[in-house]
Amino acid sequence: MMSMADLLQKLHTIDRECRYLERSAALLQWDQEIYLPPLGVEERSGQLAYLEGLHHERLISPETGETLAALGSDSANPSGDERLPGMERDFIKLMRRIYDKSVKLPPDFVRAEAAAGALSQAAWVSARKNNDFKSFLPHLEAMIDFARKKAVYWGFEGNTAYDGLLDIYEPAMTAEKADALFGPLQEGLSSLLEKIRSRPEPDLSFLETAYDPETQARFSRELLDYLGFDRRRGRLDVSAHPFTTTLGAHDVRITTRYFPGNLLSGIFSVIHEAGHAFYELGLPPELQNSVLAEGASMAIHESQSRFWENVIGRSRAFLKGLFPVLQRYFPDRLGAIDGERFYAAVNRVRPSLIRVDADEVSYALHIILRFQLEKQLISGECDPASLPGLWREYSLRYLGCASETDADGVLQDVHWSMGSFGYFPSYALGNLYALQINKKLRQDIPDAEALISSGRFDEIRNWLGKTVYCWGRRLDPGDLLKKITGEELSVQPFLDYLEGKYSEIYGF
Amino acid sequence: MMSMADLLQKLHTIDRECRYLERSAALLQWDQEIYLPPLGVEERSGQLAYLEGLHHERLISPETGETLAALGSDSANPSGDERLPGMERDFIKLMRRIYDKSVKLPPDFVRAEAAAGALSQAAWVSARKNNDFKSFLPHLEAMIDFARKKAVYWGFEGNTAYDGLLDIYEPAMTAEKADALFGPLQEGLSSLLEKIRSRPEPDLSFLETAYDPETQARFSRELLDYLGFDRRRGRLDVSAHPFTTTLGAHDVRITTRYFPGNLLSGIFSVIHEAGHAFYELGLPPELQNSVLAEGASMAIHESQSRFWENVIGRSRAFLKGLFPVLQRYFPDRLGAIDGERFYAAVNRVRPSLIRVDADEVSYALHIILRFQLEKQLISGECDPASLPGLWREYSLRYLGCASETDADGVLQDVHWSMGSFGYFPSYALGNLYALQINKKLRQDIPDAEALISSGRFDEIRNWLGKTVYCWGRRLDPGDLLKKITGEELSVQPFLDYLEGKYSEIYGF
Repeated sequence: MMSMADLLQKLHTIDRECRYLERSAALLQWDQEIYLPPLGVEERSGQLAYLEGLHHERLISPETGETLAALGSDSANPSGDERLPGMERDFIKLMRRIYDKSVKLPPDFVRAEAAAGALSQAAWVSARKNNDFKSFLPHLEAMIDFARKKAVYWGFEGNTAYDGLLDIYEPAMTAEKADALFGPLQEGLSSLLEKIRSRPEPDLSFLETAYDPETQARFSRELLDYLGFDRRRGRLDVSAHPFTTTLGAHDVRITTRYFPGNLLSGIFSVIHEAGHAFYELGLPPELQNSVLAEGASMAIHESQSRFWENVIGRSRAFLKGLFPVLQRYFPDRLGAIDGERFYAAVNRVRPSLIRVDADEVSYALHIILRFQLEKQLISGECDPASLPGLWREYSLRYLGCASETDADGVLQDVHWSMGSFGYFPSYALGNLYALQINKKLRQDIPDAEALISSGRFDEIRNWLGKTVYCWGRRLDPGDLLKKITGEELSVQPFLDYLEGKYSEIYGF
Repeated sequence: MMSMADLLQKLHTIDRECRYLERSAALLQWDQEIYLPPLGVEERSGQLAYLEGLHHERLISPETGETLAALGSDSANPSGDERLPGMERDFIKLMRRIYDKSVKLPPDFVRAEAAAGALSQAAWVSARKNNDFKSFLPHLEAMIDFARKKAVYWGFEGNTAYDGLLDIYEPAMTAEKADALFGPLQEGLSSLLEKIRSRPEPDLSFLETAYDPETQARFSRELLDYLGFDRRRGRLDVSAHPFTTTLGAHDVRITTRYFPGNLLSGIFSVIHEAGHAFYELGLPPELQNSVLAEGASMAIHESQSRFWENVIGRSRAFLKGLFPVLQRYFPDRLGAIDGERFYAAVNRVRPSLIRVDADEVSYALHIILRFQLEKQLISGECDPASLPGLWREYSLRYLGCASETDADGVLQDVHWSMGSFGYFPSYALGNLYALQINKKLRQDIPDAEALISSGRFDEIRNWLGKTVYCWGRRLDPGDLLKKITGEELSVQPFLDYLEGKYSEIYGF
């Protein structure tokens, strides 16, 4: 019989090999977004599918199940033998959860879903380009079907299927809980928007003129240094859609994009993705190279990116320090602009069609719209063919505007084409988490404003390190929040923050 | 019992999975040379070793041996069942060869060699930087030991060990055959160098002034277009040492580097690597995704890069077309320079210390020096500790000059640190192959000069496609040369080419 130490070692080896495969695949994907020659796409899909298949195979090998069982882990006691140290028990519990989920999916199903997803994503790209929802519809229907079946494999029957999908991204979240949060959230945001709409709009015209992308790129590198991003452990590249990917404990990469006519897009994408990267790079060394070395959930991850992008990045204190640096890069455009005018422009609120361009106040309404629709798609209440019309209806209801084209409507996001139903809520939940965590941070660091305005972020990052990052994926997101703040997830801190900030900017 | 068709299918599946792993690993390496953040190196080594282990494991699985045997392949008849089509028999033969070699190496030995190689390469980097041969010596000794053992595993006993290593890179080559070629080659080159030394040297000073690297990079992109490199199927990046890597049938990547004080280095690296890439991209579709979709040998590959770099790239005809383009990028530096003066400068001959900076005439002497030394290292005639002194002695003998530092002497090349003994001869043999193939090409395309001077390379590339590229790795290099030219490998065409070209430039 193997000793507990040997069994643990074995489980860590399986996990480490899964990480090798996962991060190798992540590099293949990173490269595909940034550098892959156009005609290389097809073979790259084959390489990726093969590595993902190996990963699934490695994870669900009988060895994994046997080792978990020998460590005393079962469905009643997933964390295994009680004499083991807490971190190892968290490790065993997470491996058990991932193993149980993976082993319930037949390999043929996994392969079929991956293949269908690749086709569907390609179909979405061309459907969006040609504003042709009909050509995408059969793929969407197929992906809905895969998602439903997956929930059934995991034991979420009937009406709970959507809960099964939510659980992938936000463990222990349910549609009911999300509804209970999104109701008051929508109400609060709508009433805030009404007050804002009654006031004159800040002028943004000076930001929408031509800003040289090369100069934007040079500024971004200084911005990373300004934020304290360690470039020995990561890098910044350019891609069509900004993202963060972890290729190693010391290799976390972010991307952004530069539009000549939209200076802010490039800047706030960098800060947003840097927030994700700080989390990944701040995970404690003892968790590294294990499945615990990840964010607690998608929403907690998003809380970190939005904390840096919005709570810090769009604050008056931060811009006070950063704006003079930016002026040096664009003296002709910004030299004569007053800092207060820049701050107001950065925080202009105007509900619009496209989620990724949304301001801080209306952003969550885009999410609630998607949440309402995807619940109905999974439950079958809504026929996918009727989506374009429903999208317009909901868009008018939540945002007060609607796109004439499907390209800027129901086709604007990639998520559903990949079968990622249940992902969208994370974005809005991330805002809520961010502001609850921020409240605690301000209590612990009373002079945070002064630090932020002088560009000194180490103390804040250290606080996040020992409060948030240090847990990795050991705790479920709700438990993590309770550990940090003593509170349940709630909308009030977020609404209070918005009310305070925007009543001051808009003067109501 | 499985049908022949099913067995073949099975062997192709094994092979395709090996390609997936090989090319995924190649991307990890490519990224490591170009984009990997400095602190990510250690984990990347782990990822690479894991993928390489999986590759070896997949290849030597009993399934491979059983499938080969069921297809009628054994050591007496490696190509298998005679009723199979020729291409499939070549495929089976090559799979048999690779399988037999791989299966003879114990997995522990493979892992130990990979780990030692990684350490050794790192030790070489710092030894070279600090001009400290002693710190590298134990690693070199370890790598020599691995190389000898490998030859023994493959059945090359006693004095034939070096032949076993040569065979990795140049199938069917032996030290005896190489000696028989390198003797007359050295004699011919030395006598040519003597004639050149008696004549005045072309002036290179106008090339050694500051050329903006950004502008060099822009020129390189135009140069790729000028050569007809299909950028939908490949790309150009910058790395410390230029290289070519194949990440897919439609994804072949090259790199170069730019020195402000050495304009030619960047340009001729691009042309050299493009020559490698044309070969890879020109492999026939029916071989793609199989182990046959590779060059016939390292030397044949090198013949293609050197053909483009030297025979075409450094020719008067080619420069006649290209120089005006280059002048447009550097009007201040080159606007007043005469094309003939540029041609002479590009072809200045001056034996010097560093292989990679060598001219076309003295280059092979660097190789012969290394060949002589590595034979002795493997046979045990030469104690590795005495290498620095021997290197100086041989350098004076072959090149007429010797470095005072080991950094620019015995430590200048990475190959031995990686255990790649037997690789160097490929570089010199490549020159020989290139000029024999070139002779045939000129017979078949009498107006090649006119095509080259007008920048029209399609006909030449098509000829290479249907004469060289089309064979992939189906034939051993000697057989390929015979099929193309009807001749055995010989030095005369190369020497004739040099004599003709340089007697004209130097006027002797």
